[in-house]
Amino acid sequence: MHRIEVDAEISLLEENRKFAGENREFLAKHGVVAFNLMGATGSGKTLLIERTADSLGDRLKIGAILGDVAGDDDYRRVTKHGVKAKMVNTGKECHLDAHLIHHAIEEFGDVDLLFMENVGNLVCPVDFDLGEDYRIVIVSVTEGDDVVRKHPEIFRLADAIIINKVSLAEAVGSDVETMVRDARRLNAKAPVIKMDLKTGEGFEEWLEWLMDTYERARKLKG
Amino acid sequence: MHRIEVDAEISLLEENRKFAGENREFLAKHGVVAFNLMGATGSGKTLLIERTADSLGDRLKIGAILGDVAGDDDYRRVTKHGVKAKMVNTGKECHLDAHLIHHAIEEFGDVDLLFMENVGNLVCPVDFDLGEDYRIVIVSVTEGDDVVRKHPEIFRLADAIIINKVSLAEAVGSDVETMVRDARRLNAKAPVIKMDLKTGEGFEEWLEWLMDTYERARKLKG
Repeated sequence: MHRIEVDAEISLLEENRKFAGENREFLAKHGVVAFNLMGATGSGKTLLIERTADSLGDRLKIGAILGDVAGDDDYRRVTKHGVKAKMVNTGKECHLDAHLIHHAIEEFGDVDLLFMENVGNLVCPVDFDLGEDYRIVIVSVTEGDDVVRKHPEIFRLADAIIINKVSLAEAVGSDVETMVRDARRLNAKAPVIKMDLKTGEGFEEWLEWLMDTYERARKLKG
Repeated sequence: MHRIEVDAEISLLEENRKFAGENREFLAKHGVVAFNLMGATGSGKTLLIERTADSLGDRLKIGAILGDVAGDDDYRRVTKHGVKAKMVNTGKECHLDAHLIHHAIEEFGDVDLLFMENVGNLVCPVDFDLGEDYRIVIVSVTEGDDVVRKHPEIFRLADAIIINKVSLAEAVGSDVETMVRDARRLNAKAPVIKMDLKTGEGFEEWLEWLMDTYERARKLKG
């Protein structure tokens, strides 16, 4: 029985890889730079897209494929900020996969920058390559200051790490520096951005990383 | 029985993570930027270190921890090029791990740039975080032009991909563009550098990426 489950998982990941490769080719062909945005429910993923669109919307065309188990709340939110969006409901799955993205991606050949907002948790999305260029993990201090070390893999493989709602740290008894140190132990190449989307703290640092990374990725796509 | 094996693997990776975290803290404290250099035997890992030391040795102090199952051949090679080096024999293991690096790393607090040359293969090193900043994969056209897609995970997680010995491609019947395309399908953020360490092709592009990445990492270490 166990053997059968293992085989099924391998073929699932192989199938995923095939679609991820096709997604990546599509994005390269159209010069689109894509970010897999991961984080728990309530960590600030959607608000980050909204604020980013408010800041960059007149320079770049921004798209978002929004993954959720059910509902279209996020779709209604981001479209108000000029984001071209599509909702993808995963049904029972706790992560986006490359096949779901494959169905949606064709409509996004005209954007510059595409967010793939993953389903809200720090576990399931780790193994599924979506065809993105870069991976962003956002986490809120309200999740507890041990949340980073409890989810090592997703932080290890991130290209940028955002610690959000830092102004609430004292109120919820979380030590931000513990979270930063844990992130640094797992990953030395990703910037660890202390942010508060409500107060604006850290937002300029985020935009600087995003634009710098966007330019670098565009150059690679030729 | 299977359950016991799985548990043993998890605790092995947890143990590895602890040492990787300590290695990363040591490197941050001393401002050392580290590269996990992976590739099959004969792909050109050691020669890449030698040539890089020849080019950058007067600007940067370069170190190398050299992993091999047995022997000290690589040690004798790189020290001739001014590289501060230490050999690590893994015995029966087909990869470096963070604990082996932990034993060696203390001597490298005074270098600027540290290569961790992994054991020669494209499979075992994937799962073992060494505490490095960045991961480089080098592959030779003589390994066959299907070598990239046969080892998706290591290419997916690389920060730079080098395809070496391109001047031999025709002689060995490998199509370099197939290798580039396969790499691009797995990874859009890593530069894919077509190189020939004997003729010098692609070497400037490599140095440019390395110095750019080194500067970025130094800034993150503060």
